[in-house]
Amino acid sequence: MMDKKPKVLIVMGSDSDYPVLKECFSVLKDFNVDFEARVCSAHRTPEDAARLSRDAAGNGFEVIIAAAGKAAHLPGVLAAFTALPVIGIPVKASFDGLDALLSIVQMPPGIPVASMAVDGALNAGIFAVQILSVKYDYLKTALKEYKEKMIDKVREKDKKLQKTIAEDMK
Amino acid sequence: MMDKKPKVLIVMGSDSDYPVLKECFSVLKDFNVDFEARVCSAHRTPEDAARLSRDAAGNGFEVIIAAAGKAAHLPGVLAAFTALPVIGIPVKASFDGLDALLSIVQMPPGIPVASMAVDGALNAGIFAVQILSVKYDYLKTALKEYKEKMIDKVREKDKKLQKTIAEDMK
Amino acid sequence: MMDKKPKVLIVMGSDSDYPVLKECFSVLKDFNVDFEARVCSAHRTPEDAARLSRDAAGNGFEVIIAAAGKAAHLPGVLAAFTALPVIGIPVKASFDGLDALLSIVQMPPGIPVASMAVDGALNAGIFAVQILSVKYDYLKTALKEYKEKMIDKVREKDKKLQKTIAEDMK
Amino acid sequence: MMDKKPKVLIVMGSDSDYPVLKECFSVLKDFNVDFEARVCSAHRTPEDAARLSRDAAGNGFEVIIAAAGKAAHLPGVLAAFTALPVIGIPVKASFDGLDALLSIVQMPPGIPVASMAVDGALNAGIFAVQILSVKYDYLKTALKEYKEKMIDKVREKDKKLQKTIAEDMK
Amino acid sequence: MMDKKPKVLIVMGSDSDYPVLKECFSVLKDFNVDFEARVCSAHRTPEDAARLSRDAAGNGFEVIIAAAGKAAHLPGVLAAFTALPVIGIPVKASFDGLDALLSIVQMPPGIPVASMAVDGALNAGIFAVQILSVKYDYLKTALKEYKEKMIDKVREKDKKLQKTIAEDMK
Amino acid sequence: MMDKKPKVLIVMGSDSDYPVLKECFSVLKDFNVDFEARVCSAHRTPEDAARLSRDAAGNGFEVIIAAAGKAAHLPGVLAAFTALPVIGIPVKASFDGLDALLSIVQMPPGIPVASMAVDGALNAGIFAVQILSVKYDYLKTALKEYKEKMIDKVREKDKKLQKTIAEDMK
Amino acid sequence: MMDKKPKVLIVMGSDSDYPVLKECFSVLKDFNVDFEARVCSAHRTPEDAARLSRDAAGNGFEVIIAAAGKAAHLPGVLAAFTALPVIGIPVKASFDGLDALLSIVQMPPGIPVASMAVDGALNAGIFAVQILSVKYDYLKTALKEYKEKMIDKVREKDKKLQKTIAEDMK
Amino acid sequence: MMDKKPKVLIVMGSDSDYPVLKECFSVLKDFNVDFEARVCSAHRTPEDAARLSRDAAGNGFEVIIAAAGKAAHLPGVLAAFTALPVIGIPVKASFDGLDALLSIVQMPPGIPVASMAVDGALNAGIFAVQILSVKYDYLKTALKEYKEKMIDKVREKDKKLQKTIAEDMK
Repeated sequence: MMDKKPKVLIVMGSDSDYPVLKECFSVLKDFNVDFEARVCSAHRTPEDAARLSRDAAGNGFEVIIAAAGKAAHLPGVLAAFTALPVIGIPVKASFDGLDALLSIVQMPPGIPVASMAVDGALNAGIFAVQILSVKYDYLKTALKEYKEKMIDKVREKDKKLQKTIAEDMK
Repeated sequence: MMDKKPKVLIVMGSDSDYPVLKECFSVLKDFNVDFEARVCSAHRTPEDAARLSRDAAGNGFEVIIAAAGKAAHLPGVLAAFTALPVIGIPVKASFDGLDALLSIVQMPPGIPVASMAVDGALNAGIFAVQILSVKYDYLKTALKEYKEKMIDKVREKDKKLQKTIAEDMK
Repeated sequence: MMDKKPKVLIVMGSDSDYPVLKECFSVLKDFNVDFEARVCSAHRTPEDAARLSRDAAGNGFEVIIAAAGKAAHLPGVLAAFTALPVIGIPVKASFDGLDALLSIVQMPPGIPVASMAVDGALNAGIFAVQILSVKYDYLKTALKEYKEKMIDKVREKDKKLQKTIAEDMK
Repeated sequence: MMDKKPKVLIVMGSDSDYPVLKECFSVLKDFNVDFEARVCSAHRTPEDAARLSRDAAGNGFEVIIAAAGKAAHLPGVLAAFTALPVIGIPVKASFDGLDALLSIVQMPPGIPVASMAVDGALNAGIFAVQILSVKYDYLKTALKEYKEKMIDKVREKDKKLQKTIAEDMK
Repeated sequence: MMDKKPKVLIVMGSDSDYPVLKECFSVLKDFNVDFEARVCSAHRTPEDAARLSRDAAGNGFEVIIAAAGKAAHLPGVLAAFTALPVIGIPVKASFDGLDALLSIVQMPPGIPVASMAVDGALNAGIFAVQILSVKYDYLKTALKEYKEKMIDKVREKDKKLQKTIAEDMK
Repeated sequence: MMDKKPKVLIVMGSDSDYPVLKECFSVLKDFNVDFEARVCSAHRTPEDAARLSRDAAGNGFEVIIAAAGKAAHLPGVLAAFTALPVIGIPVKASFDGLDALLSIVQMPPGIPVASMAVDGALNAGIFAVQILSVKYDYLKTALKEYKEKMIDKVREKDKKLQKTIAEDMK
Repeated sequence: MMDKKPKVLIVMGSDSDYPVLKECFSVLKDFNVDFEARVCSAHRTPEDAARLSRDAAGNGFEVIIAAAGKAAHLPGVLAAFTALPVIGIPVKASFDGLDALLSIVQMPPGIPVASMAVDGALNAGIFAVQILSVKYDYLKTALKEYKEKMIDKVREKDKKLQKTIAEDMK
Repeated sequence: MMDKKPKVLIVMGSDSDYPVLKECFSVLKDFNVDFEARVCSAHRTPEDAARLSRDAAGNGFEVIIAAAGKAAHLPGVLAAFTALPVIGIPVKASFDGLDALLSIVQMPPGIPVASMAVDGALNAGIFAVQILSVKYDYLKTALKEYKEKMIDKVREKDKKLQKTIAEDMK
């Protein structure tokens, strides 16, 4: 149906961020969105980070997701080298993730980074899909279905709860 | 060149947020992006908020920007009723804006909101443009020019600084 | 003695909040107050949340208790759709519960939510009883007995401590 | 229509809290609820505080509102001596009111205090009315009207905004 | 040598604070200072707390130590009923103890409480001894010895470290 | 009546702390307690600080009060060189005084500093008096009178409030 | 005496940081250390920032000082491109400078940045001098004199204080 | 090639800081820099701390590293007695290390301490090497190699990640 699938670049500052990012990969796969995941540090491999970001649009990426902890400069550094939308995931490594959150969200005027919640990798995936859905109509439909499934799940849990309480409160 | 300009819905929780949002309006205007700005409270007019968000896609909006202070539920509440990407602006009203930031950014799995910096209305505008640029090619070009202008401005300031210091340090 | 028992609506944003809420259920049961507990998300099932709250008074509920973590919008969202008193329980899920606390307590003028301590489900139950006791006299008596029992328990612990210390400090 | 108006006891830790509390007085007056306001310190006049609280129910009060800053013990101390519902208002005096908020909201199991936002005196008044409305039907009607007026005000501001923007963005 | 040993009253808000307080008991015993430890809650047994504090001086106590967590009102409440010096120990129960620390240390003008570090029970004991040493000369001597022992211990650890490193760095 | 007045050493890290400390001086004077106030920095004049503290007891001081802002090491550094009780006043200079508070209150085991509230100079004076009152009986009496005066003042303010409200609420 | 003066590169993220940095310039001038000050943004002119840092050693700079506010990536980004020691100055722009401090100080293993206090530009200058003094002996002497002058100033202020108090306390 | 190796003095406030510091020792050893590690408390052995610091330059040390937790005065106290550059490592012991960080980084004008991240011992070692490299050319070369190795490691991890994902996402 489509000639070309949309493609997301995912960059993590360290391979230790991999477990946090897994649900981001899954959600993109579920939405039938291609992605490439890279380990690349804003501080240890700054040239690689610059190149990755500068070449991203040319390489067919339409959104960038970047995850990092502590003084989490990676999303901002990538945003500096591209005009693609960059989504940041603050990874909890110290201070409950507050240092990463502030390092990501408090970007100066001109270079925005869209921050998700601490360890909010699933939402980073969904937000990338929402961005892409502006262009790709099949994702609009998919997002609607996703929302409906969420509703069903919550309602199911609601029903189960009634039983649990009925038993627990006997 | 285009038949239809892209359109952004901007919602503020209170008209007191207007001064903060002005630079968001300007930047959208500069990028030749249409927008409609509304005052609508998640708590005082929840039905209106739900309707605004539910109808947004149908009314031709492709991105939503929402600004609110304190227990800033507005961006999350709008995100609940739409699959459009929602950008949140925490407005500083108490606790240096920390309450608004956390209320906006710490969204639960499934319903993302993309948080900007506290009072980061300019960046909200640019990020909306970046999202739209995925679909609208003229915005890709405009963003590149915007980045180049920023570079020029910084370099100009750098030159001016040399003079200032030369005089101040005499 | 009474024709109708007072009734409290308890809403939790996720079934994972259930363990925290158990002592709230117990205390209401102990005070002979009816309750109905529901799983309902402000973000995933916003229409259900609106309906629950809008219908609460008509369905005979006199107080609402809502528990949620992170960007805890649920209590505020429920408060938006009802004139019943809403008690909020910030659930600890990140930042030691500070994000949930601020999201719940920092409500804007016009739509109050009464915040309890982080994970303060027991107190939410007691506070609901205190609210209901304004109308139901049998709860006034019950609360007095509850206070007296607390005094006895503290005094008992005080006595035990003397023994423990006497042994430990030998 | 009613023989006796409901009555609220308002206690402030210092007369410097008076300006913050004014909108609480106004809202109670608007809702036709009687109140008595007292200056009484948990630390400087502890016996008076104990007496005020212990006698409150007997003196016909049905709800207590207490405002204090810094190490804000007053609401908790009043709650210790009564079974009436106690609403706490953290007053901003240091740390943006965080010390007052935590001192009020983090009450131990058994003795709840319902915390409002920092300087949230208006909401304390409304919440007191919501509590009283459980018993007094005329307040149910009044609260509905209050909510409708809020909706009208927000919608009016929304309309005005359109004009302001139209002019500002010319 | 002395007819009467100095006596310290130690009050804890809950028996769960006992493990934290143990090193306080030990240090007082080591310094040959008498103490009485009580469980007494500012909120659950406010009358007992008031009585304990009011009678403390008459019962021969010269210093009061009070430990509590969360909204830690106990030290301040005791200080309200006595002119004896009151030392507060914030117990870590939530927010890393920040709520307890602020509730204890941010006392209003006129009623001081001397705050120790979070869970700083050992130092509460030593500070009580330092206060008492103003009057009791034998404690002046004991404190000097205590300081000298600390110096010896640190120097010993310093020596051991040299060995550990020599081995570890081989 | 007394041969020798008790004497307090007050040390401030910078002369800019003087305005904060004024009410400390006044309260000591009111209680007829002698004091000597010194500017001495833990970092700029460490030898002077050490000497001041080491000689304090020999020079007849019985309590030390130290005030400092930011990384407020002064109280802890003085405590290191003496066995006298040291009272610390965190002075607000940055972070609302949180840096100074934590630098003062979080002392390691063995060397306590008694922290007052941020800018809590008045209470530092009163706490010094409470410490001295353990030895000096005339201060016990004076403290009782001080407490009684505070009660009178609060009650007066309470009366005035009634009038203010009566007028304001007309 | 020397052929070549040591040289420090000072980079500020925005020309609005200039007033904060002035005392850094002065102190370097006082110590007879050359410096070059540049405006260069990690986000708006990332290539310039990379070049500045990469060429710094070759251009004869021996230390880099970088000042930035909010999500202050500049010092870390410069450190990524050089092996010279980088000193970071968190500039207060939001959250009392906490966001800038954490963004600067929480650097990941391998790429250190030496953080000064918020707005601590003077100390950045002195620390640069201390680093350079490892190599340049004339700076060792100058630092000793600087320390002695500080001692004199504190002692002078101490003397003045005695007079001020003597008059104020009359 | 060199007659004398550069030498770093490392001081820890307690031997419990040893595990944190181990990677600092390793990195110095790897860079062929001598070091001496000491346990010495700013509060328990203040005279030893003063002596260590005062004699450091004379004993051939060129940089000091100091690690401490809680009210971490050690780095600042050492900096008070020397003109050598002092690097501080905030050790996490309470408040996620925020108390230690603020106690170390918020030094007053005149006496800088260069703060590393919480538990950032590795970076303290590298920063010491960077300082020494200003004087010792062999360290310039070594730092370049160190940076290159880091790049290789990140690139290796990047390659491994591709395989892991390929397998995990099958």
